[in-house]
Amino acid sequence: MADILDPLAWTCPAPLRDQQRVVLGHGGGGKLSQELIEHLFMPAFDATDLASAPRDSAVLEAGAGVRLAFTTDSYVVQPLFFPGGSIGDLAVNGTVNDLAMSGAVPLALSSGFILEEGLELDVLGQIAEAMGRAAKVADVRLVTGDTKVVEHGHADGMYVNTSGVGLIPAGVELDPAAARPGDRVIVSGLVGEHGVAIMSVREGITFGTVVQTDSAPLAGLVATMLAACPGGTGQGIHALRDPTRGGVAATLCEIAEASRVGIEFLESSVPVPDAVQAACSFLGLDALHVANEGKLVAFVAPEVVDVVLEAMHGHEYGRQAAVIGTVIEAHPGMVVGRTAFGGTRVVDRPLGEQLPRIC
Amino acid sequence: MADILDPLAWTCPAPLRDQQRVVLGHGGGGKLSQELIEHLFMPAFDATDLASAPRDSAVLEAGAGVRLAFTTDSYVVQPLFFPGGSIGDLAVNGTVNDLAMSGAVPLALSSGFILEEGLELDVLGQIAEAMGRAAKVADVRLVTGDTKVVEHGHADGMYVNTSGVGLIPAGVELDPAAARPGDRVIVSGLVGEHGVAIMSVREGITFGTVVQTDSAPLAGLVATMLAACPGGTGQGIHALRDPTRGGVAATLCEIAEASRVGIEFLESSVPVPDAVQAACSFLGLDALHVANEGKLVAFVAPEVVDVVLEAMHGHEYGRQAAVIGTVIEAHPGMVVGRTAFGGTRVVDRPLGEQLPRIC
Repeated sequence: MADILDPLAWTCPAPLRDQQRVVLGHGGGGKLSQELIEHLFMPAFDATDLASAPRDSAVLEAGAGVRLAFTTDSYVVQPLFFPGGSIGDLAVNGTVNDLAMSGAVPLALSSGFILEEGLELDVLGQIAEAMGRAAKVADVRLVTGDTKVVEHGHADGMYVNTSGVGLIPAGVELDPAAARPGDRVIVSGLVGEHGVAIMSVREGITFGTVVQTDSAPLAGLVATMLAACPGGTGQGIHALRDPTRGGVAATLCEIAEASRVGIEFLESSVPVPDAVQAACSFLGLDALHVANEGKLVAFVAPEVVDVVLEAMHGHEYGRQAAVIGTVIEAHPGMVVGRTAFGGTRVVDRPLGEQLPRIC
Repeated sequence: MADILDPLAWTCPAPLRDQQRVVLGHGGGGKLSQELIEHLFMPAFDATDLASAPRDSAVLEAGAGVRLAFTTDSYVVQPLFFPGGSIGDLAVNGTVNDLAMSGAVPLALSSGFILEEGLELDVLGQIAEAMGRAAKVADVRLVTGDTKVVEHGHADGMYVNTSGVGLIPAGVELDPAAARPGDRVIVSGLVGEHGVAIMSVREGITFGTVVQTDSAPLAGLVATMLAACPGGTGQGIHALRDPTRGGVAATLCEIAEASRVGIEFLESSVPVPDAVQAACSFLGLDALHVANEGKLVAFVAPEVVDVVLEAMHGHEYGRQAAVIGTVIEAHPGMVVGRTAFGGTRVVDRPLGEQLPRIC
């Protein structure tokens, strides 16, 4: 992590031309990742015309009115097994959730394995079974795959890529650039569990209770939310995002930037479990920056916020959904938290990540 | 390679239960890969009902008559740059070709990078640009992506996953299980270049001429072939496959098994460049087993073989297309080569791969 805390990079947030080499933070989903996308990948891919607002999944027109969501994620989490899950179910749920954030019904997933020579086949079998079970729960199928093997000493056991294709129902229009002043910001449940679960097992620290990953597939919750709106296609729900790397803070910043709006939220209204709070205090972290793998943040018009919340409370993955803030016209691109003591603070995106390789 | 040449594994071709650990050959696209798919992944993914004949891409019904091809491939080739190409264009062309083998018109690709901390950004930039150029040539767009970074010492610079979605035109029906007796076997051009290009640069051996990878996108060639058939949707073309890992030999064996037919071919009719032949003689390899990245093998009804060949000869990636054999009823699942001296030999699938990490 030394590189990304380099004072030069810190005061002048890393224009790519000043960096020579890849650092861990480039994979952290924060500003460094964003710079890599904007200044390296998008020009190289001749994709500068594509949505400037980063989406969890691309939206494709397939003809005959069929709209597809398409997404990919590679998983390099260490260790491969952690409280409440494994790289396998994480890979399935993560890709299902990226599809769901476009409002899509997952149609099929792919699995790409990069295996380390010498990996126990039992481990591979357990992880493959975890993927199969997670896919069944998410009501999606793993239909195509690929396996490569690299020499012993590489790949830390295994890396897994899952890509996914989903169908976006007619009338559903979600867009990270579509949040608007007046929208309420809803978080679907308790925040910070996945990151703390990984940290605790990796650092060998416990915090009273064992915190388990919140990894869960959210396509069903999203379908329920969309159906609850008048017309049944989510009119009034403007944007959805799953707060993974960078946590809720990064998600709020991304939507504020993409939609050119300000966001104000009440710090005390963010539901953080006691054990996560304890771990964060102990480690000097901010729960708002800790990764989640089974939560979403929704930007919802005030007219529908009640029906959407009610629908969420009736779904197993939304029982603890809460309104945490409001979208405002003032300070576009900026996220401000109000503390319990009446103060305010500006919440920023992390440069890299607090802990590498949590997904 | 020691593990996969273990006498036990060799004499008793690796029922999975007798193996404890992943070996390099599990990623070689040969019998060991097939066993992993059949005995580990398919049961775990509850996918035993899916096409028993392995396809290059899955076919999905998206409603409204829209049929999609969906595929994934991870690339771990070493070195990252080699004569005529790089991991970047290889990753784009490979996935385009997997879509094309289902007759699909590529719609969009994803890119998933696993980067090694310390990789020069210049190298990443060059490879990303190679991907962008290859995508432009293949007339497809890279629309979504993901980047992870692992610690120095892992990931050999970078691994790249590309997944892809394509649209299968109405009326196009290609199936690896659909080859039938009487079909002619066409190879689209010179065989063995990609594998020899990687070997020569990795082993530091030259064979007179520098052999370059044949990496190329084949969707345009396939579209041309399909259009040449009566009706314009490939009636008479029964199966297509790109002979990558395991080479033309593995492809012939896979189609013979999937279609439950025999295949006979004339060894001398397989177009092998002199430099490839020289390299193979020197290294004790069989050009039929060497990987290609810009070729296809087609199984075509005798009524259309002339128009298909003519169309191929008019396309830049099919100029040297040649009929090499015939599908027969006898010895289903078996591939027999007739040598120049009138003898025959049974061609088998490799157990693992001749050279690991060629793609």
